[in-house]
Amino acid sequence: MKILCSKSELTAGLNIVSKAVPSKTTMSILECILIDCTDGNIKLIANDMDFGIETVIKGKILEKGVVAYDANILVNLIRSLPDNDVTIETDADYNTSITCEKINFNKILSRSGEEFSYLPKVDMNNPVVLSKLTLKDVVRQTIFSISDNEANKMMGGELFEINGDNLRVVSLDGHRISIRNIKMNKAYNSIKVIIPGKTLNEISKIISGNDDDNVDIYFDSNHVLFKFDNTTVVSRLIEGDYFKIDQMLSNDYQTKININKKELLNCISRATLLIKEGDKKPVILNINDNKIDLNINSVVGSMNESIDIEKEGKDLMIGFNPKFLIDALRVIDDESINIYLVNAKAPCFIRDDEGSYIYLVLPVNFTTAN
Amino acid sequence: MKILCSKSELTAGLNIVSKAVPSKTTMSILECILIDCTDGNIKLIANDMDFGIETVIKGKILEKGVVAYDANILVNLIRSLPDNDVTIETDADYNTSITCEKINFNKILSRSGEEFSYLPKVDMNNPVVLSKLTLKDVVRQTIFSISDNEANKMMGGELFEINGDNLRVVSLDGHRISIRNIKMNKAYNSIKVIIPGKTLNEISKIISGNDDDNVDIYFDSNHVLFKFDNTTVVSRLIEGDYFKIDQMLSNDYQTKININKKELLNCISRATLLIKEGDKKPVILNINDNKIDLNINSVVGSMNESIDIEKEGKDLMIGFNPKFLIDALRVIDDESINIYLVNAKAPCFIRDDEGSYIYLVLPVNFTTAN
Repeated sequence: MKILCSKSELTAGLNIVSKAVPSKTTMSILECILIDCTDGNIKLIANDMDFGIETVIKGKILEKGVVAYDANILVNLIRSLPDNDVTIETDADYNTSITCEKINFNKILSRSGEEFSYLPKVDMNNPVVLSKLTLKDVVRQTIFSISDNEANKMMGGELFEINGDNLRVVSLDGHRISIRNIKMNKAYNSIKVIIPGKTLNEISKIISGNDDDNVDIYFDSNHVLFKFDNTTVVSRLIEGDYFKIDQMLSNDYQTKININKKELLNCISRATLLIKEGDKKPVILNINDNKIDLNINSVVGSMNESIDIEKEGKDLMIGFNPKFLIDALRVIDDESINIYLVNAKAPCFIRDDEGSYIYLVLPVNFTTAN
Repeated sequence: MKILCSKSELTAGLNIVSKAVPSKTTMSILECILIDCTDGNIKLIANDMDFGIETVIKGKILEKGVVAYDANILVNLIRSLPDNDVTIETDADYNTSITCEKINFNKILSRSGEEFSYLPKVDMNNPVVLSKLTLKDVVRQTIFSISDNEANKMMGGELFEINGDNLRVVSLDGHRISIRNIKMNKAYNSIKVIIPGKTLNEISKIISGNDDDNVDIYFDSNHVLFKFDNTTVVSRLIEGDYFKIDQMLSNDYQTKININKKELLNCISRATLLIKEGDKKPVILNINDNKIDLNINSVVGSMNESIDIEKEGKDLMIGFNPKFLIDALRVIDDESINIYLVNAKAPCFIRDDEGSYIYLVLPVNFTTAN
């Protein structure tokens, strides 16, 4: 095999497919990036079996072939070259040379692509179309409440549920639920799948969020395929029926407050400075007339701060794991938010009137004597 | 004790003295920052016994006193506050409250300053004066070749040697020597001391290198004191006679080459990509007429690259630890450099005609058959 590409094309392509190279594996073929130029395109492919990426780069094919290269070595060597044309040539014994200007790397380890697993085939009809920005945003706004729960794999993924022109993305970890609703440009057939969190994290890193380009998303019973630019990402889905979310949601409340998001976020972040890692101290919210007193006590010291609010309904004292509130507040873009509460043992809901987001957080017990 | 300071003054001062708080220690008092405002100034002090920093910040003293605070907690709490006035108040039982706007931290742990060690006294006469930029530069240009050699503590420091108006700074680790000579604005009494590398690293971080301000440096038999802005840094010196450097230097050579520094640096950096950590593969320089062929062989593959040079004297093939060449080349600002060589077993010298720098690097054995 022999190809000629610009360093920048190679680097861009390698950076994308590297995301599917596992950092630790016992199967050395998974640590490889395959270059396949048998069909007239220069395809770079990596696949960790759960999750695979293929991207096509520009360049000249001087001799067709398929070769697998150690991902780390290939990426580092190419990155070190000057910004010019690069020739990669592998002979029949899988000795590779990489040449650029007066630089020659020789006898670089490479291997046949025989053991390499190509991406699974997914039927590519009727894509669901999202802008790159929307996809990145919705992942960022929900991914923090997935959970690495070995006993319940579904918590490690996110529900993508399409009804008509509405996409609902849900994640939960047993202490909280994050929900985002997105209006799409047209209606689609109903879809309900669980996409692994790892896939969504890696997709977010690969797609650049600045542009208005779209991502085409295809589903079959076992896989999801994302197609954008010259890149294809395929991931297996998580099997099973997702949690019955709607039973956990409620519109009843006894207390509704409206509060400046940034003030609340800064205050809770400050409070966590008094907590050492692993120490489960709640932040206590004392909702009283038109202010909240926030309070935290730990071995290091205590903090209190009060924030002005608008309130409807009853006064209430309630405790939360501060991290859970922080995670939700960080991804809400609204300047002021509504929080709905029932009592000190029921979940609170942070949600907007349009229903574009719902963040449910369970409270924690606290002793007022603390 | 009760003081009122702006958050920015406090943060700036704490950032400086924090550099003398050890990350690991069994003596909890060393993890503290002392605030001492008994003499009308607000002094922040930290001292890890080898190395101490004192800085004076602006603010109002509402009640005089001396209190020691856990450095980590104090720094994090102050950093979390809004950009406004901060009151720190500690009562007779060493309960501290920190107040800013509507935020109250209470019952923060603090302790008496009784166990705290103040900076050692150093006689402050006849300072050696260097610009901040010069001091930072000379440390950066030499610090990489100190060594953590338990058996020979002197390798962990740098020689600062003053003769007349010349300052010579030297570091060595048994494989290489780095020397910088600096012309100062006036002549001083002769001084020859070994300053710990850690001290020089921390000083470099504290002084901002952008401005032309000076640092006054005072020496006594056991300590060095750096004075700049409102800050005083005192460090113990390393005891003993430094290595006899001049015996190791020589102006004889058989081969002299002039080469573009950046080309050589980039080439050697690329070559190191083929070396796994801990693998001691030399880069081989084959000096031949008006070019160098650089060559490296490893289990991963091999590289060769040729660079045009100007040469005087004999052709030569010589091997080096690539890291040692890279370290020296990185801190030389000249566009083209001269390298002086004798034979494959003698050190090479990278030095300029003015004698402002000399980098000596020992070669390593290599088998041409490799």
